[in-house]
Amino acid sequence: MTRPGAGMAADIDEQPAGYARLLSAEHTESIARVAAAIARRRPRHVVFTARGTSDHAALYGAYLTEIRLGLPAGLASPSAVTIYGARPDLCDALVVGVSQSGGSPDLTEVLRTARASGALTLAVTNNPDSPLVEAAELSVDIAAGHERAVAATKTYTAELLALLMLVEGIRAGEGTLPAEERAALDALPELAEHTLTDPTPAQLAPRYRFAGQLVTTGRGYAYPTAREAALKLMETSYLPALAFSGADLLHGPLAMTDPDVPVLAVVGSGPGGRSMGEVLPRLGERRADVVVVGSAEIEGATRMAVPEVDERYAPLLDILPLQRLALALALARGEDPDAPRGLKKVTATM
Amino acid sequence: MTRPGAGMAADIDEQPAGYARLLSAEHTESIARVAAAIARRRPRHVVFTARGTSDHAALYGAYLTEIRLGLPAGLASPSAVTIYGARPDLCDALVVGVSQSGGSPDLTEVLRTARASGALTLAVTNNPDSPLVEAAELSVDIAAGHERAVAATKTYTAELLALLMLVEGIRAGEGTLPAEERAALDALPELAEHTLTDPTPAQLAPRYRFAGQLVTTGRGYAYPTAREAALKLMETSYLPALAFSGADLLHGPLAMTDPDVPVLAVVGSGPGGRSMGEVLPRLGERRADVVVVGSAEIEGATRMAVPEVDERYAPLLDILPLQRLALALALARGEDPDAPRGLKKVTATM
Repeated sequence: MTRPGAGMAADIDEQPAGYARLLSAEHTESIARVAAAIARRRPRHVVFTARGTSDHAALYGAYLTEIRLGLPAGLASPSAVTIYGARPDLCDALVVGVSQSGGSPDLTEVLRTARASGALTLAVTNNPDSPLVEAAELSVDIAAGHERAVAATKTYTAELLALLMLVEGIRAGEGTLPAEERAALDALPELAEHTLTDPTPAQLAPRYRFAGQLVTTGRGYAYPTAREAALKLMETSYLPALAFSGADLLHGPLAMTDPDVPVLAVVGSGPGGRSMGEVLPRLGERRADVVVVGSAEIEGATRMAVPEVDERYAPLLDILPLQRLALALALARGEDPDAPRGLKKVTATM
Repeated sequence: MTRPGAGMAADIDEQPAGYARLLSAEHTESIARVAAAIARRRPRHVVFTARGTSDHAALYGAYLTEIRLGLPAGLASPSAVTIYGARPDLCDALVVGVSQSGGSPDLTEVLRTARASGALTLAVTNNPDSPLVEAAELSVDIAAGHERAVAATKTYTAELLALLMLVEGIRAGEGTLPAEERAALDALPELAEHTLTDPTPAQLAPRYRFAGQLVTTGRGYAYPTAREAALKLMETSYLPALAFSGADLLHGPLAMTDPDVPVLAVVGSGPGGRSMGEVLPRLGERRADVVVVGSAEIEGATRMAVPEVDERYAPLLDILPLQRLALALALARGEDPDAPRGLKKVTATM
C-alpha cells in the first residue's frame, strides 16, 4: 500500500525530465518533420478537438496558432459530428486531436471524418499505437511515459510543449528554429525544476481546507492554466472551482467573489498579465482572498512564484504550483488523489 | 421601490412576444436579406466572438453552422487579437460578433480587424446604434427591447432565435425558408408561452435553498443551455454552478457529484438527449440529486417539462424554466436578482 498521492506527486516531479525528453534531438527532429509537412500543405485554419485536460492544452494550441501563425483557430465540439452527423467541409483545415490516451472514440471519429473530407489531420497523444494515431495522417508522440495518477499532470504539460514545438516549427517551415527560440525552449527543464522547489503550494493548502468553492482566473495565454487548475482542484479535492477569463469575470461572475471565495489569479509578466490590471482591483473592492501565480510581486496578494519568462512559455511553468496545490489540498482534505472516486483513466464517449 | 426580481420576471415573461416580434414580416425579411448576402459570399468557415451570456448564444450558432450548413465553426477568444495583437488571416471567414449591448470594445476591435483582413463581418446585437454594428459590414437587430434586469434573459433567447433564422436563411440562400421550417419557427411563441406556465421551477427553488453548489449538464444543442443556466444561477444566487457537457462530466468532474450536489440535466428528445443515456445512470450510481429539463419522463428524476420539439429548437424553450428557477432561487435566498452585487450591465473590457 503506497502513501496517498504518491503517484500524482511522482508524475508532477517528472515534468522537467519530460520537457528534456521532448527537447532531445530525437523528438525535436520528429516534431520538426511533422511541422514541415504541415507548413507545406498551408492549411487556411486550424480546428482543435479534445476533452478534459487535453482541451486546455488544445486551447493553448489555439492561442499559439492565432498569435504565432496568424491562422484562425478554434475548438470544435465532437458532438456536432458524432451525435448529429455534421460533416463540415474541412478541406482547407488542419484538424488536431489532442488526447493523452488517444483512445476516445469520439475524437477518433472526428479525425476520421475530417480526413475523409480532405482535411490534414494530426494526432497529439501519449500513445503512438492508439486509434487516434491510426485515424490521423500525421502524429506527434508527447513521450511522457506512463502516468500513475488518474488526474493528468505530466501528460498535460507534455502536450503543451509538443504543441509549442509544433507551432514554432510550422512558423519556421522547413528551416530550423531561430537560435533565440531554441534557447528559450532549452531553458524550460531547469526553470521547471526550479519552480517545483517553491514550498508555497504545500504551505497554502491548509488555507483552503474548509473553502466551499474556488475561483481561478487568467487572460490570454494564462487562461488555459486557470481552466486546468480548476479542473485539477475539482478532480482531486471535489471542490467546485470555477475558471473565468479575467474579462468574463468582470461580465458577471464577479458577483460571486467575496471574502469567503478564494481566487487564484494567474498573472504573467506580459500583455495578458497587464490586462489583469483591471481585474485585480475589482477583486480587491470585493475583499476577495486572492493568491497570485506569477513572477512579480502584487501588493496585498500572496504569491506562488514562477520564473519570469515570455507569456508564451509561462503555461509550462505556471501550472506546476497549481498542480502541487491541488495535490496538497486533496491530502489536507483526506482524499487520495491517486484514486479519485468515480473516475477512470480512459473514458470512452461517443 | 419595486418588488425584488420584478424586472427579471418581466424580462422572462416577454420572451414569447420577443419571438413573435422577430418572426414578424419586418424582421424576417431583414434577417433573410442578411442571410442572402452571406450565402452569396460563400464563406469557408465561421468564427464567432462573444462574452458571457452571448457566448452561449454563439455556441448555439456554432452548432447550427456545423450541422445545418456543413461549415466549420468555432469561438474565438478576443484576447489573441486585443491583447497579443494577433492578426489571423480571415479572408475566407464570416466573423460574427454577438453582444446584447454591442458596446464591448474588445469585440468591436475583433470585428474591425477581421473586416480589415477581408473577412465578411456580422454584428448580432440588441442595439442597432452600437459600435459593434458600426464596425461590422452586416448586422442583425435582435429587437428584444429594453432589458430591465442585469442578468440577461430575453436578449439571450432573442439572440438564439436570430441566429437560428439567420442560419436557416443562409441554408435557403436566396430562396424562402421551406414551409416546414417556417411552421416550426412560427410555433415557437406559443410553445414558449406554454412552457412559462409550468409551476415546477418555483416549486423546486426551496429544494436548492441550502445547496452549496450545482452542476448542470447537456450534450450537443443542449450544452449551451447547460452553460447559460449555470451562469444565471451564479449571477443571481452566487451559487457556484458548474456546467459540463455530458461527455466531459464522465471524463473527470463526475467525481464531484454526490447526494449533496444537485445536477440539472438538459435532456432533449433527439440524438443529444439519447447520448445523455450513458450519463444519467452514472449519476444514479453516485446517488446524485438529478432534475431533468426535457419533454420525456425519466425514471427516478424530477422534471421541468418542456414541449417536445426537434433538438434544434429546444434551446429556445429549455432555458425558460431554468431562468425561472434562477429567479425563484435568488428570491428564496434573499437576493435581489435585479440588482446583483458587483455587476454592471455593460462591461468594457479590452
